[in-house]
Amino acid sequence: MSIKLNDKYVKNFITDTEIEAYREKVVETDKMLRNKTGKGSDFLGWMTASCAYDKDEYARLQAAAEKIKKSCDVFIVIGIGGSYLGSRAVIELVKSPRYNSMKKDTPDIYFSGCNISATDMRELLALCEGRDVCINVISKSGTTTEPSIAFRIFRQYLEDRYGKEGSKDRIFITTDRARGVLKPLATREGYETFTVPDDMGGRYSVLSPVGLLPIAVAGIDIMELLSGCEEARVALSTADIDKNDAYRYAVIRNILLEKGKGIEVLVGYEPSFQMFSEWWKQLFGESEGKDGKGIYPASVIFSTDLHSLGQYIQEGQRQLFETVLSLESADDDLSVPDDAENIDGLNFVSGKSLYEVNQTAMRATILAHVDGGVPNLVLEAKDRTAKTVGYLIYFFWISCAMSGYLLGVNPFDQPGVEAYKKNMFALLGKPGYEAMAEELNAKLQ
Amino acid sequence: MSIKLNDKYVKNFITDTEIEAYREKVVETDKMLRNKTGKGSDFLGWMTASCAYDKDEYARLQAAAEKIKKSCDVFIVIGIGGSYLGSRAVIELVKSPRYNSMKKDTPDIYFSGCNISATDMRELLALCEGRDVCINVISKSGTTTEPSIAFRIFRQYLEDRYGKEGSKDRIFITTDRARGVLKPLATREGYETFTVPDDMGGRYSVLSPVGLLPIAVAGIDIMELLSGCEEARVALSTADIDKNDAYRYAVIRNILLEKGKGIEVLVGYEPSFQMFSEWWKQLFGESEGKDGKGIYPASVIFSTDLHSLGQYIQEGQRQLFETVLSLESADDDLSVPDDAENIDGLNFVSGKSLYEVNQTAMRATILAHVDGGVPNLVLEAKDRTAKTVGYLIYFFWISCAMSGYLLGVNPFDQPGVEAYKKNMFALLGKPGYEAMAEELNAKLQ
Repeated sequence: MSIKLNDKYVKNFITDTEIEAYREKVVETDKMLRNKTGKGSDFLGWMTASCAYDKDEYARLQAAAEKIKKSCDVFIVIGIGGSYLGSRAVIELVKSPRYNSMKKDTPDIYFSGCNISATDMRELLALCEGRDVCINVISKSGTTTEPSIAFRIFRQYLEDRYGKEGSKDRIFITTDRARGVLKPLATREGYETFTVPDDMGGRYSVLSPVGLLPIAVAGIDIMELLSGCEEARVALSTADIDKNDAYRYAVIRNILLEKGKGIEVLVGYEPSFQMFSEWWKQLFGESEGKDGKGIYPASVIFSTDLHSLGQYIQEGQRQLFETVLSLESADDDLSVPDDAENIDGLNFVSGKSLYEVNQTAMRATILAHVDGGVPNLVLEAKDRTAKTVGYLIYFFWISCAMSGYLLGVNPFDQPGVEAYKKNMFALLGKPGYEAMAEELNAKLQ
Repeated sequence: MSIKLNDKYVKNFITDTEIEAYREKVVETDKMLRNKTGKGSDFLGWMTASCAYDKDEYARLQAAAEKIKKSCDVFIVIGIGGSYLGSRAVIELVKSPRYNSMKKDTPDIYFSGCNISATDMRELLALCEGRDVCINVISKSGTTTEPSIAFRIFRQYLEDRYGKEGSKDRIFITTDRARGVLKPLATREGYETFTVPDDMGGRYSVLSPVGLLPIAVAGIDIMELLSGCEEARVALSTADIDKNDAYRYAVIRNILLEKGKGIEVLVGYEPSFQMFSEWWKQLFGESEGKDGKGIYPASVIFSTDLHSLGQYIQEGQRQLFETVLSLESADDDLSVPDDAENIDGLNFVSGKSLYEVNQTAMRATILAHVDGGVPNLVLEAKDRTAKTVGYLIYFFWISCAMSGYLLGVNPFDQPGVEAYKKNMFALLGKPGYEAMAEELNAKLQ
């Protein structure tokens, strides 16, 4: 198995009996999930479709990625939330957080439409100067404020530069197959389109065209990614909490929450885990944070943040637990050089590999934090290849579905995301929101 | 004043009487702080020295920065925790998180020695290929594991490339003025050195040479930064909570903690706030997270994360409050283009500036989150110039000192950071740790 749960470092905090008490509930919930009888069951497409993606569209997507690689130096991906987090997470984890700075034969990839910053937009436009540009707009409805504004700006930019005709081969749209405003526009203008599936929410969409087109442009083997997902689907199809580590993880985090651990800190020992942690935060935060419930998902990169949040985790308010992502093999490695003078006193690690030192730091930290009263779960990942990452994605998906149901919420909706949007429309003067605007403006005085 | 606290959005959650109850305690604590009679008072150098940095060393530092700018394309800053977070935060906030990608007449700046990743190190070495390199090693003791390993590697790299003689003008050391192992080495080898002051911890050191050298290399006016700090020092020298917004912020966050708000989410509406938030996390997390106490410091960038953690903040477990950094003026700006066809239905914002839309999103979100049961504090920053950032840094410093004392902890130590280090030394086979190693290895079985 590509991902294994090591739960020995929670044994001081929870008992086997407490885990056992969930056994039946997990079996029932698994049934509900697979029979699609639970809340939000219209959004379970990721359980099967993600691992076995539509063959024709897949071939077309690969071809589009090749075309993009050939025709541009800068690829701008326009989307917000699940429309960008998944692909950015996979690119940075499998390739590098410094993907754009490294030598490569694939285009630089920048993400836009995921904020309303003028500074960010100006910088992106400056980065396009003198270099060929393609864009991928990812939006189901085509009306979400942030990506819509970015699309207005970049569409105008491309048409100014390449003309209407020249732009049409540079604009790729990932959207609803029928509804929404982008499909008709694309048809009329001749933009190539890909499908945002109906039956999966944004946070479950990275292995659909939403994530796969940018991932393929980055030169990552998307077949490998999908095969890892399929491997996980098979491996995690049992409802037995002794055999299904994703379900066991879901159970343990619910028990820890019941015991007052309201924060889960996802820990990586490689900088490349940072954006993956952001993807994970959306997955769990958006799935479980409702009805006044849920664990707050946070993240750190160690040993970096051992010199920052480390103090808090070791000795602060005992309201948290950690889930550690351990890489069980080194892809890159380097040795610590010896120093004949031993100025820094570190010759006891001379010749040791950095990977080994890093893994030792991990084990040392787990023991220290457990001693300090922080339950630690360890997810042991074989490596950070596309295949393992595909496995890890499905692992977290199914775990999150189970965890949300055990918590008693609908893990597949996100009703709270609308609140700020409505207020924003009112304050921006959208027609129809006049009464609301008046009320809000009074509150702002 | 460059930073103003707007606390109207906590009025639903706390009363004036609750704030008033702290008035006397703040006056007493302020006295203790300024008379240096509290815990950790050996580390109060930042209160005065940071704003009025040693003139001679300052001139030498400016000259070194100019020399570095001329003699390299890549500047590698080696340090961990407070030795890198402050300078990186200021560079990304004042310049850009994409500083390295943007066209400029200053060197690229990369941070090393703040993790144990072989992948990260290999990438940095690759980025140095064919480009001239200088390094700045920042370590008080010179024996911290992460930066020491990085220094071993980069020192060897420079000597292989430039020879021992050629390297000596490319290595800059920021360390203790007398103790530690780096000062004697530097003297012998002829490396230029700068001082890590004795009387300030890492998280209070960004306005000392620790942070100022990399910040100056990035082309930021460090006089402006220091003058902002000085402005704050004067403005925030009163103990009256009606006049000292930093103290008022400290009081309110302690009241919120007492009411069960164990997480503070720092919110920025510009991507450039991300690393600044990491600096802030170290400051508050390390200062307050001890004795089983303290608020967990978290951060988000909006509107980006409104489509990720937004759901949780709006409707999840009510254990958090937000502190919003509002930029009160636009430095860059752009208008939303009009679309004659109004395909996305957004013509009601056509012609509006992105800055205005972004600020409206902020106000909309504050109202939505307050309605959802999340207290919101707003820190209104004039802009993100070096001067205002200098002010903001001092604002958070003095606020954190007051907050930690009100909480009843020593805000200036970090005893918990040693726990993982000891374990790591034992597991790595450091002489003298044999018994401990045996014990730890038994726990890992």
